[in-house]
Amino acid sequence: MFRSKLQFFTNYSTPVFEYTVKADANENLLDYPEDLQILIADILNKSVKDLCFYPEINSQPLKQELAKFYNLKEENFIIGNGSDQIIQIIIQAACDKDDFIFTLYPSFAMYKITADLFDVNHSFIDITQNWEIDVEETVKKIGKNERIKVIFIDTPNNPTGIALDYEKLKMIVKSFPEKLVVIDNAYGEYCDIDYLSLVLQNENVIILKTFSKIGFAGIRCGYAIGNERIIENLHKVKPPYNVNILSQQIAISLLKNFDRLKDNIDTVKNERLRMANALKSFYFVLPSQANFISIVDDEVDYIFDYLKDKKILVKKFDTGFKKLLRITLGKPVDNDIILENLINYKRGKQI
Amino acid sequence: MFRSKLQFFTNYSTPVFEYTVKADANENLLDYPEDLQILIADILNKSVKDLCFYPEINSQPLKQELAKFYNLKEENFIIGNGSDQIIQIIIQAACDKDDFIFTLYPSFAMYKITADLFDVNHSFIDITQNWEIDVEETVKKIGKNERIKVIFIDTPNNPTGIALDYEKLKMIVKSFPEKLVVIDNAYGEYCDIDYLSLVLQNENVIILKTFSKIGFAGIRCGYAIGNERIIENLHKVKPPYNVNILSQQIAISLLKNFDRLKDNIDTVKNERLRMANALKSFYFVLPSQANFISIVDDEVDYIFDYLKDKKILVKKFDTGFKKLLRITLGKPVDNDIILENLINYKRGKQI
Repeated sequence: MFRSKLQFFTNYSTPVFEYTVKADANENLLDYPEDLQILIADILNKSVKDLCFYPEINSQPLKQELAKFYNLKEENFIIGNGSDQIIQIIIQAACDKDDFIFTLYPSFAMYKITADLFDVNHSFIDITQNWEIDVEETVKKIGKNERIKVIFIDTPNNPTGIALDYEKLKMIVKSFPEKLVVIDNAYGEYCDIDYLSLVLQNENVIILKTFSKIGFAGIRCGYAIGNERIIENLHKVKPPYNVNILSQQIAISLLKNFDRLKDNIDTVKNERLRMANALKSFYFVLPSQANFISIVDDEVDYIFDYLKDKKILVKKFDTGFKKLLRITLGKPVDNDIILENLINYKRGKQI
Repeated sequence: MFRSKLQFFTNYSTPVFEYTVKADANENLLDYPEDLQILIADILNKSVKDLCFYPEINSQPLKQELAKFYNLKEENFIIGNGSDQIIQIIIQAACDKDDFIFTLYPSFAMYKITADLFDVNHSFIDITQNWEIDVEETVKKIGKNERIKVIFIDTPNNPTGIALDYEKLKMIVKSFPEKLVVIDNAYGEYCDIDYLSLVLQNENVIILKTFSKIGFAGIRCGYAIGNERIIENLHKVKPPYNVNILSQQIAISLLKNFDRLKDNIDTVKNERLRMANALKSFYFVLPSQANFISIVDDEVDYIFDYLKDKKILVKKFDTGFKKLLRITLGKPVDNDIILENLINYKRGKQI
């Protein structure tokens, strides 16, 4: 009754346990300014009477606001139910069965998961032992496989937090003008490098963005920026009415009031520096440009359990050659708790 | 850069023009009771502080509420971003490339559109000249093609509004125990037949439901009911976090206060009878069990334009052998305007 490959699939889920500090999902859990809260409550209140209508089929009003925000055209945007949906749309639009996508390893898990669902194969290159991307090797590896149709580069990378140098990324983009290069910039607001000009200067680049990491994971709204031809093709496979009325309205309001989010973003960036400095005598901390920091440690499984006992929820990764603990940066008071426990863990070992 | 088949695809969209009466999309545009409006505004207001969190990954709280509502188990439900998404999930879970889905013709357009996207073929049977389903012919036709994996039956049917007799549907279900039979019951609240027992008594049945046709198209929330094994398999291909926090909260609240929607549903059913009776001297009106009525007329294109000139938005269908005009039932005052114009059209022709 179901496809035979489904026996190898499981429902994607994340471990949940009782916690007092949530630092597992790269949300931004800082309270946003009261005036923004009031504004959003007001927008939601006004939308109640519109709930009977289908939302705009292609999220046109939100695209108009994005065009203003980026000083681009509506035709440069496509809106998704989270950027997850746009990853699916891209694979669906570009890959025939048995084609390939290419990713870094490690990188955001949804590229491979989505490819699997669409009978699309997955090729990847390991990030080097120094946590860098060997661009020459990457280009060489991609060049060997004509069936690679889409190259996904998450920068800042998840789970390392490391951002790829602009010129290095440009080299990948320029090397494969016939392949789509997807720059997943979900953590872009926390990063010093702006990749937008790569979209404007090349015909094969898509940038993925989301509202999830800047305080609005609950609305499930992401978008892609690309040239008109790319965006038009992606729309051909986009499900109609894919973003609900309330999320569209909130996203529009966030773009209009983006300066209201700046303080929380800055706080996270400051906390990142503070945490990294405080931890560096105890752990190998990767240089993150995202709203989390990752530490590399052979004892990650034990540290994870130690934190779990203290009701601190973080995320662990086993990349095969290294183990990572990814810690989402939250309120300073919560970061303090994490910090104290991470240090206690190592100190306890020394006694 | 994109799949070659994309050249034959277009972005799904619907014609939009300035209107004073909207009767094109099978929304329920009747004002819902003020206490329900207040309740929803309150829920939204309380959810503002939770927007920073990802929604529950599989909409578990909503499934719990559905389990109570239907007196079934959580494991009998899957939640989608509209039932559109569940159509996609079903095809993705059941069909390999070059497999088939089977539908009635005409029926809801998204079955074929979605199948096309997934390289899945489409087989169908025409509804008879008497607007009935010839079940024996249907069974015969399905039986000839082993690659048919999913049978979609929308009942009440869109665009005819006609509901399929329970026993006839049961015959299809029983004939193909190894194929999935999807009963799309989007208009179920307006229909006298309850198909739920078909899920409980058979291993191959899924019922699709939605909040869209009962006043909440804007939240994009649909669900499927099926046995645990089916639902478990569908979850394997469901994107994580597919329904946002606000829509989940509203849907939960609607289930808890379902009696508050009854008046609007009853009004539509009464209006359906009133409209059909008023129109039957002028038009061939199909016997609808949905929140719309469809008329069969060779002049549908002219009638559509005539109504368009009067700023009345309806939907027209050309089934190849007959032309249909589908009119969503709205507020009585709006229905009056439609009625008057439809009658004027025919009277104008007689002068």
